[in-house]
Amino acid sequence: MQEFTDTMTSAETIHQQLAFLMELDRLKSVIRQSPLANRSRRENSAEHSWHLAMFALVLSEHAERRVDAAHVVKLLLLHDIVEIDAGDSPIHASGTDKAALERAERAAAERIFGLLPPEQAERFLALWWEFEVGETPEARFAKALDRLQPLLVNTHAGGGTWTENGVTEAQVGERYGPAIRGGSSALWEAAAAQVRLHFSTVA
Amino acid sequence: MQEFTDTMTSAETIHQQLAFLMELDRLKSVIRQSPLANRSRRENSAEHSWHLAMFALVLSEHAERRVDAAHVVKLLLLHDIVEIDAGDSPIHASGTDKAALERAERAAAERIFGLLPPEQAERFLALWWEFEVGETPEARFAKALDRLQPLLVNTHAGGGTWTENGVTEAQVGERYGPAIRGGSSALWEAAAAQVRLHFSTVA
Ligand SMILES: [Ca+2]
Repeated sequence: MQEFTDTMTSAETIHQQLAFLMELDRLKSVIRQSPLANRSRRENSAEHSWHLAMFALVLSEHAERRVDAAHVVKLLLLHDIVEIDAGDSPIHASGTDKAALERAERAAAERIFGLLPPEQAERFLALWWEFEVGETPEARFAKALDRLQPLLVNTHAGGGTWTENGVTEAQVGERYGPAIRGGSSALWEAAAAQVRLHFSTVA
Repeated sequence: MQEFTDTMTSAETIHQQLAFLMELDRLKSVIRQSPLANRSRRENSAEHSWHLAMFALVLSEHAERRVDAAHVVKLLLLHDIVEIDAGDSPIHASGTDKAALERAERAAAERIFGLLPPEQAERFLALWWEFEVGETPEARFAKALDRLQPLLVNTHAGGGTWTENGVTEAQVGERYGPAIRGGSSALWEAAAAQVRLHFSTVA
């Protein structure tokens, strides 16, 4: 009898988990401002999340404070899922209502992670919130990578969202610097060199 | 002096790592046969890899043999990178030269992971090879998820690559069953139910 109950529970668990995973497919249709490095089109949030997870696997040794790389990977895999409901919020947008956006993202997290079995839903919500708050070494490093990746894509694509939005070298420093430096001063040094090079060639 | 040497080495390390990460951007342009669940377009290998990493985070409890979920995530994040040079090899293709494909993928792994600093290149090559060989519990489970995801996408998209290629219910069992069952009999049971339902509605 116990075995029968366990089997039923496991089938129901899998059913909820697969429904969640198929809902995630929608993140592939959330389009970001950043182009691909080859400029063929704009990037979507699912492939962006994969790219960031690779950044974490490759670059964790440079984190300002020692991090668990696998935990950084988890935070980055999950961090944009709320965009399925709340959309992407571009770095260079002005006049967005921050409080309204936060409410929309919170509601999105509760709806989407809420598709999972309750205990797993709680764990995933906590990971998403850890990234948002940005206080653990892993969250700070994850946030640094989330700024570093579009910075590099923009320099490789010859300007990208900076050219489109008329963003200056000083504004790049203000909008990317604090987050990247907060996670890794070594990576900020490398990034700043690429930014200088970019603006020296377009000037 | 020692400090000076370390700094030089660290900058060079970062330079190689960022070059590798920007090369990875190309995986976003490798197009697979599988559609998105909403049928709007075909999936690319970068977003597919993100989706699979989420499958691993969500479903690891169902692995036939106990797995380190973080290790499964790593294998899946890396497993398709060779496609940047070697292209995607569809499940339902016939007449592919398996030995030639393996040589191409091996060469791709050596070139692409070889962009990294030597020690890290070795580690990543070993992870890629672990997935290919498919003998560790983590690799077997990763391979199961790599078959489960397109199966679910096909059923959600109302047929997908099965309809395009005239694939029968029996052929789905042959081409997906062994890999999925090898990683998780519980997940195969759930998948097989969806396959039966799909073919009962299209018949
Ligand atoms: Ca694959």
